[in-house]
Order: sequence, then C-alpha cells, then structure tokens
Amino acid sequence: MVKILVDAMGGDNAPAATVQGSVLALEKDKDLYLVLTGRQADIEAELKKYKYDKSRLEIVDCPDVIDMNDIPTEAIKRKQSSLVAGFWKLKKEDDLCALVTAGSTGATIVGGQLILGRIRGIKRPALCPAIPNSRGRVTMLCDCGANAECKPVMLCQFAVLASAYAEVGFGISSPKVGLLSNGTEEHKGDPLHQETYKYLSKMQGIDFIGNIEGRDIMLGECDVAVADGFSGNIALKSMEGCGKLVLGVMKKEFSSSLSSKIGYLFMRKAIRNMRGQLDFEKFGGALLLGLKKVVVKSHGSSKASTIAASIENAANIYRKGLVPAVEKKLENVDFDTLIPEEI
Amino acid sequence: MVKILVDAMGGDNAPAATVQGSVLALEKDKDLYLVLTGRQADIEAELKKYKYDKSRLEIVDCPDVIDMNDIPTEAIKRKQSSLVAGFWKLKKEDDLCALVTAGSTGATIVGGQLILGRIRGIKRPALCPAIPNSRGRVTMLCDCGANAECKPVMLCQFAVLASAYAEVGFGISSPKVGLLSNGTEEHKGDPLHQETYKYLSKMQGIDFIGNIEGRDIMLGECDVAVADGFSGNIALKSMEGCGKLVLGVMKKEFSSSLSSKIGYLFMRKAIRNMRGQLDFEKFGGALLLGLKKVVVKSHGSSKASTIAASIENAANIYRKGLVPAVEKKLENVDFDTLIPEEI
Repeated sequence: MVKILVDAMGGDNAPAATVQGSVLALEKDKDLYLVLTGRQADIEAELKKYKYDKSRLEIVDCPDVIDMNDIPTEAIKRKQSSLVAGFWKLKKEDDLCALVTAGSTGATIVGGQLILGRIRGIKRPALCPAIPNSRGRVTMLCDCGANAECKPVMLCQFAVLASAYAEVGFGISSPKVGLLSNGTEEHKGDPLHQETYKYLSKMQGIDFIGNIEGRDIMLGECDVAVADGFSGNIALKSMEGCGKLVLGVMKKEFSSSLSSKIGYLFMRKAIRNMRGQLDFEKFGGALLLGLKKVVVKSHGSSKASTIAASIENAANIYRKGLVPAVEKKLENVDFDTLIPEEI
Repeated sequence: MVKILVDAMGGDNAPAATVQGSVLALEKDKDLYLVLTGRQADIEAELKKYKYDKSRLEIVDCPDVIDMNDIPTEAIKRKQSSLVAGFWKLKKEDDLCALVTAGSTGATIVGGQLILGRIRGIKRPALCPAIPNSRGRVTMLCDCGANAECKPVMLCQFAVLASAYAEVGFGISSPKVGLLSNGTEEHKGDPLHQETYKYLSKMQGIDFIGNIEGRDIMLGECDVAVADGFSGNIALKSMEGCGKLVLGVMKKEFSSSLSSKIGYLFMRKAIRNMRGQLDFEKFGGALLLGLKKVVVKSHGSSKASTIAASIENAANIYRKGLVPAVEKKLENVDFDTLIPEEI
C-alpha cells in the first residue's frame, strides 16, 4: 500500500477540488492510502458528497491555513497549517511516501527544505514540471522557480535531479540534457551559465548536449532543460501564456461564424487533441526534487482531475524509486572536486 | 522621400527574400527609396525577376558577407560586408533614415553600437519586438537578447526606449510598463530585478505597474515588458516554441481524418486568424532601440513578406519620429541622480 499525504486546504479550489481529486485517485488506484490534512469539518463536508473506500482514507485535523499573502518562512514556523502538519508527518513517519499540495509554492519549498530536508549532498531543491513537447514526449524543466538566484553547482545538481526524474518517471534512458540560455553557442549567456556549461560538459552520467534556447523546450530538442529558477520560471509561464492565448483565440474563432461552428462539429476530436498538447498539468504538477521524499506541487488553480493526476504521479514516482535513483546518480559525481568552492 | 538601407545579403534566404521584399515595399509605399547593400551581381540577378521603379532603388556593391559563424566584433572591423557598409553609410549620410537587416543579430548590435552610435545618455541598445497579445494589441518585450548581462540603469532605460516605441509605433498613450520577473510580488526576483523595481517605481514619465510574469506578455497585462536580455530572450523563444508546436499540431490534427478535413474547409478563415495571432513577425522584426537612427532586425529566416513588413515598419517609425521621441523622454529622467553610480 502506498501511503500519500494530501494538503486538503491548498489551492484556489480547496477543499472541494482536493477532496474530490483524492476520491478519484483512490478509485483508480486500489493500492493507495491517503492522509488528508486540513480542517476536519470542511473535509468531511466535502467527503459526504462521494462514495469512497473509507478504510483507505484518514483525516488529520489542522486549524490554520497558509494563504498566498503569508511570508513562507514565517508561516512555516508559526502556523499549524495543513501543509506544515503534512511535512512534519512525512518527515517522522516512515510509511508515508509522498506529499501532494496545490498550496503556496513558496511555503512548499521552505517547508520541504526546513522540515522534510534535502537528500544528502543536494544544495537546494528544485521545481520540475514535465512539459509536453512536439515529439509527443516530455521535457523536464528544472528549476522553474524554486531558486531565483543560482550558482553553477546548483544548476549541475538540477541536471542530476531532472535526469533521474526523466528516467524513473518517463522511462527515458540516458536523457539528453540542455542548458537553457540565450543562444546555442557555447559562449552565450551570463557568467553563471558560461561557468555551468563548462562543468556540465565534464559531468559523469549526464548526457549534456550543450546550450538550448527557449523554443527547444516545447520542440523537444532535449529531455531535460536545466535552468536557473528565475529564467526557468519565465520560460514556463511564457509558454503557459502562449497556450492560454491560443485556447482563447480558438474558442473565439471557432464560434465566430456559422461556418466555423459547423466546422467545429467535424473537428472536435482534433481540437481536443490540440488542447491536450497544451495541457501543462496533465502529468500532475511539478515535482519538488532534491528532498528526502517525493513532493508534488500541483498548480494553485488545480481542479479535481489535476489533483488526482498529481496523486497518481506521486505514487508512480515513489513506486519507481525516484529518491534512490537520485542518490545513485549522485554517487557518480564528486561536486567538490568538479566545482571549486569559491564559485 | 524616406530613404532606407536594406542589408541585401542578411538572412537565411538572402538575397532572394531581401530583394523581393524590397520590391514589395517599394510597390506599397511610393514615398520610399531603398539602398541595397551587398554583392551587386547577385542582387541584380534577383532584381531581374521583378518589375519595379528603378528611380527609387540603388545598389551599393560590397564583396564580403558576415555569416553566423563570424565573431561579431571581429567581423565588424575586418569585413567590408553589406551590413558594415550599411552602418557606415547610415552614420555618414544625413538623408538615410533607417537600416533593415535579417543578418546576424550579434553583428547588428555591435555594428549599431560601434559604427552608428547610441543616443546621448543611453548605456546600451536593446532589441525590442512587438508581440501580438490576447487583447488584440501588442506588448513590447525589451530587451530580448542584446544584453545577456544587465544593470538596473539599463533596465530603466529599456523602459524609456520601449515606451517611446509603443507610443510612436502603435499609438499607445502612457503605455503600462511591467518588469518581467518570477512572480508579481515586489520582493520577487534576484537582486538586479529587486533593485530595478525600486528605481522604476520612482521614474518620471513611466507608468510602472510592477512585476509581471511570463504569461502576462501574451495575455497583454502591460504594453511594455522590461526584461534583462537573457531572460527576455528565453521568454520570446519559449513563446515562439509554443506557437510552433501549436501550428505543427494543428496541421497534423486537421488533416488526421476525413472528418477533420471536412471541418477544415468550414474553418479556414478562423484558422487563418489563429495563425495570425501567433505570427511573431507580422510587425516586421525587432527594433534595435537606443541608436541614433532607426535599425530593424528581421528574423534570420525572414521571407520576402517579412522583409517588406520590416521595411514598412522602419519607414513608419522614422516618419513618426522615434528617435526624437526617445530623446524627449530622456529629458524627463536624470539617471545619474536616480541610480547611484556604484550599482
């Protein structure tokens, strides 16, 4: 039985979406056990709406909620929130495998680092979504926002973390790793990226293909796009913005005339497939990589189906052994020798 | 008569596309005079294919061509290329108003700085495309690649340059300026962006709305997105990649079955409109802002229609007085007082 914590109060649509998503996940995976943290009364009110296997779900009552206006480091210390309680339980109880939250990204990162803790040797955790690409596969974008300021050693570690995720989560053997920069030539980028390029070239167990550009993420030129959290976040959200624009224009154009309405009837399947290609959430949120257990950050606007996908993703990644895979990969690289301390 | 230089050898499809684009532009705008720089024999061979007003086109013969493998600073000094000759003529001859090139971005930036020169007070030129947004308007993204490393004063100047472009080129009065970061909150970003936020808030003549995220560029949350050239480039190319993926999927899906082929017949207009929304080149390339005259950098893969749009854009921007507008805006801000020298 895989036992997973769900932050029932996290996200714009909580607890309705988190509870419904949990029920959906339990239904699909009979080997799953869920622990929902949050306001017990609110969770129970939602649970009443569904039939579910009560022997595989429990609630841990937590009075406080962290919202978007809280400062993450303070909220983590002060509040007995569903997220904080979740991280403490995850740390202390060996049989708990993973945590899923659609709550504050900042609080998730801080909680993950301060409460759960990092894998030995990892400097900073990193957010890593799997982005659908034009080859019908996925590109891991790591980091996409956990670290606005980075050092070369962090970027090199992101390559290790995301390669392990690509292998374990998507069965990609020897994933190709690109460094997100402002051009493909080796000399491109600022000093951080120029330095990182040199170290990535020398790393054992990493198939480094050189610099990539923003467009290569969705075109699938590599399996792993290594990025500092600042520009990785900008890349992710720029693609999301473009996707939103396309879906908005599609909706408008396809109902703009009788002719296009008729056309729509014939093309529903094609259009549904297109939408799927632009669904950044279909693989169930971003992983917060580098922590001692599996942590999945679902989008703040997650609906029930997204929460269910995130839970499924967490269970899958746990079963396939993400954390041991990262630890094994780390054995290949001696970061202290590779990268001088002063950098 | 507006007299514009065209780098006839610049771009993947030169000189065929540059020559045809020039002919198209001359046909559309009877008050236009073009000076094509490049290999005379090659240009003449292309020109023979078209009818055009010979009294409004001249050729300046240049033996060398700068290609993508040249190091910009060296090529600028060494080669008598179509681009270098163009910049020298633009600098020396008062009646020449603008230069259009689809050649090497690096060489264009270096040539613009070293030969043509910057507007008094401007630290560095910046590349600025106009990106179609979901409000049916445009968002200026400045800088999108000229400066991989930036200081706060540069970002503040990009706000001035792009605001002037938005006003003059697109008639947007008091353009809203956002700072591209990894979140909307004031404390987001690295020290460069946190510092810049403070200065932008204090600037006269700039309508600063705070931080924006990558998605806000195409959703049109502001008229001007100020970015360092590294992450601005990543934003632009990430959106381009997403657009390419969508058009690729559309093409595939819409011919995937008889039903969708029939649907396509009914929706051709709607689909054409969608394509238009994703055409990053429809406004004719990116402006290289901050120089003493108008310089337009067209995409390396520009076709004739894109070259024609870039020439039209250059003529339009010149006629509407972009450079004087920038100079006027600069009078509002004393950068030395606003931003201490040590930063």
